[in-house]
Amino acid sequence: MSKRVAVIGAGPSGLAQLRAFQSAAQNGADIPEIVCFEKQSNWGGLWNYTWRTGVDENGEPVHGSMYRYLWSNGPKEGLEFADYSFEEHFGKQIASYPPRAVLFDYIEGRVLKADVRKWIKFSTVVRFVEYDDEKGDFEITVHDMENDTVYKERFDNFICASGHFSSPNVPEYPGFAAFNGRIVHAHDFRDAREFADKDVLLLGASYSAEDIGSQCWKYGAKTVTTSYRSAPMGFDWPDNWEEKPALEKVEGRTAYFVDGTTKDIDAIILCTGYKHYFPFLPDDLRLKTANRLATADLYKGVVYVNNPKMFYLGMQDQWFTFNMFDAQAWYVRDVIMDRIAVPADKETLLADVAERVAREDASDDVKYAIKYQADYVKELVAETDYPSFNIDGACEAFFEWKKHKAEDIMAFRNNSYTSVITGTLAPKHHTPWKDALDDSLEVYLQN
Amino acid sequence: MSKRVAVIGAGPSGLAQLRAFQSAAQNGADIPEIVCFEKQSNWGGLWNYTWRTGVDENGEPVHGSMYRYLWSNGPKEGLEFADYSFEEHFGKQIASYPPRAVLFDYIEGRVLKADVRKWIKFSTVVRFVEYDDEKGDFEITVHDMENDTVYKERFDNFICASGHFSSPNVPEYPGFAAFNGRIVHAHDFRDAREFADKDVLLLGASYSAEDIGSQCWKYGAKTVTTSYRSAPMGFDWPDNWEEKPALEKVEGRTAYFVDGTTKDIDAIILCTGYKHYFPFLPDDLRLKTANRLATADLYKGVVYVNNPKMFYLGMQDQWFTFNMFDAQAWYVRDVIMDRIAVPADKETLLADVAERVAREDASDDVKYAIKYQADYVKELVAETDYPSFNIDGACEAFFEWKKHKAEDIMAFRNNSYTSVITGTLAPKHHTPWKDALDDSLEVYLQN
Repeated sequence: MSKRVAVIGAGPSGLAQLRAFQSAAQNGADIPEIVCFEKQSNWGGLWNYTWRTGVDENGEPVHGSMYRYLWSNGPKEGLEFADYSFEEHFGKQIASYPPRAVLFDYIEGRVLKADVRKWIKFSTVVRFVEYDDEKGDFEITVHDMENDTVYKERFDNFICASGHFSSPNVPEYPGFAAFNGRIVHAHDFRDAREFADKDVLLLGASYSAEDIGSQCWKYGAKTVTTSYRSAPMGFDWPDNWEEKPALEKVEGRTAYFVDGTTKDIDAIILCTGYKHYFPFLPDDLRLKTANRLATADLYKGVVYVNNPKMFYLGMQDQWFTFNMFDAQAWYVRDVIMDRIAVPADKETLLADVAERVAREDASDDVKYAIKYQADYVKELVAETDYPSFNIDGACEAFFEWKKHKAEDIMAFRNNSYTSVITGTLAPKHHTPWKDALDDSLEVYLQN
Repeated sequence: MSKRVAVIGAGPSGLAQLRAFQSAAQNGADIPEIVCFEKQSNWGGLWNYTWRTGVDENGEPVHGSMYRYLWSNGPKEGLEFADYSFEEHFGKQIASYPPRAVLFDYIEGRVLKADVRKWIKFSTVVRFVEYDDEKGDFEITVHDMENDTVYKERFDNFICASGHFSSPNVPEYPGFAAFNGRIVHAHDFRDAREFADKDVLLLGASYSAEDIGSQCWKYGAKTVTTSYRSAPMGFDWPDNWEEKPALEKVEGRTAYFVDGTTKDIDAIILCTGYKHYFPFLPDDLRLKTANRLATADLYKGVVYVNNPKMFYLGMQDQWFTFNMFDAQAWYVRDVIMDRIAVPADKETLLADVAERVAREDASDDVKYAIKYQADYVKELVAETDYPSFNIDGACEAFFEWKKHKAEDIMAFRNNSYTSVITGTLAPKHHTPWKDALDDSLEVYLQN
């Protein structure tokens, strides 16, 4: 096969893509030449932890938003690879909420086995991509940081798997420029111990606020205050955790909220989300979408309607993660390898997007949303040779997880669930999450 | 004149370039069309203070390295514009070490008077620049962040004035990934009060370490430790300030130095310098130089030897600043306007660079270096209509400054010097620097 395919990013999505092609080759297919450009010096994407914040050793914005003591905030039974179980990787079943080092090890295990590292150009930043109408291909300009040289290559297809939890959305509130404490976005949060004995304010009411607040609490923050704009998270928080409505302003070290209350604080952590951000793409290739389950402009959630030779992986808001990226990657592979035909008329592509949007908008219910994304994963898996698995069972793990969070937000990670890949019930972790201050791989695996 | 000229950056260098062209127009010349691309939403470059760190509101690396309580670390008498004195701007002479807000106001005053804001495209990031050999011009791809659209424009000349104190050089030491305190580069240092009552370690022995350490001391750090690799700064530091040799590693919250001593610390501030960083330039246009007085590859310190239609401003290490940028900008203007001829053969250009390098390398003496850069400013000023001024007098202010620092590092800013533009002696500031906690423009000007 003479096609050349570029993949941007060697995180969970990009690695799924490499594994998808390698799997086809392993089964005897003639696959395209694959070149994966990764700006970091190692793979793993967000799971490649770095102590760095701001810009990296090459002056590029740090990709990682990972913090030191992060544990999966959903059960691993909802994200397990259908072609590579946790039991295959670790030689035994493990507990259900692995810390980052454990999940990194698992992600890496599959691609080491697949031997796809040779396809990746590390420390290589994509500077710009252009589609050539005449030649019908993509010209990609990259900066090889190790040799400090910029070069161009041409590709028949282009898969953008650069993620959308790396470029922070950073709002400004009155008084920020004169605030006497620290202001940091969740993207640059690293070690919760930096906030021990501090009065910490977190702006936001979604996963970052919930989890970073919990980290600060676990590692000894004096008080945790979270501020919501629309609705409180509403969990049964510890005594030194308070939910406040929207921030109005800060003065000196005092935060003023719209209900007239105040709180003296040492630091503000902005848990205000991330932006889809593609500085290397011109207008005709650049996806513009909200962070939602049905993204704008992506047929089947992956084929860019304005140029069907281009694909985006993992651009959805996510209940399903690794396994959904797999479903997408196998699907994209099969489109590129002409095993699946994408309709030629743009109207059909747009109609597909519109149907997905309308169906997502039909309900605000959380269970509905989980089932909606499960249906999407089912849809893609059915069209390729990705191993089918019990997706409804994964949904059940998510429903249980939601229930366990509501019961005790600081203890939900002490529960365990049954793998939908191997059918094995995970062991309970040896130590309650709140007491497990050492979250190294070695300690976590001592079950 | 039909030429089109692109300027990247509306900081002190870029603004000097706009003022240089406007000055020619004011004197009746027919000037090129000037388009200045500035990624920030306001002008001033480093002097445009922001509370933001990491990436900005558009997801781009924050340009600013400025911190809240920065005061000029050299006397203003060494940087005064020859065409716009402090007395003209403020209506009176002011003290010699202005805080950032005062210097920003001064920089802005000249360009407001020149009415060049209309030439600047704000919130516009240069994505890539290419030289077209056939057409003999530059194609510049920019991202207009306000309208989120990417477009291209062509220019006859291209002036890179994007600065070289924005992209931090961030080394890694053993233990950083597991350090339990905060690690931040000087680039992301903002409010010294964040470090009150803390044990702070600063890595570095140059201006950043000296000044950020002094800031931390002034605003109540418990202890300040600075770590040098080659030689200590050697000032007569306060009792709670200690100089240590190179850092070996950190463990937990303890720093280990190569002399076998240790120090428990809360935070590490990396005062490890900046890199010349041009992510928007291909190999044939990208300057690669050390931070030194005689940069590589720049004829007369500004004309890029590999493409003399391209210019770099302010890429030198700096004793002289604003006035040197002016000298460069007037010179570049006159090259572009065919008032000055650049030799056509590259050998001559390279010989000019080699001569400057050899002359700089001839001595390590600080006075020599200051005089060397003074000679450079003299050389350029002599070739244009930039108002000549007493450059030797500015050197004297630098020599005095050095002496005052050696006498009392925490009191040198209490001295005053004589303007080489107006001949007026600056007043002594009303409050010793160490006691002047409010450094607002209003308070500073109360002399």
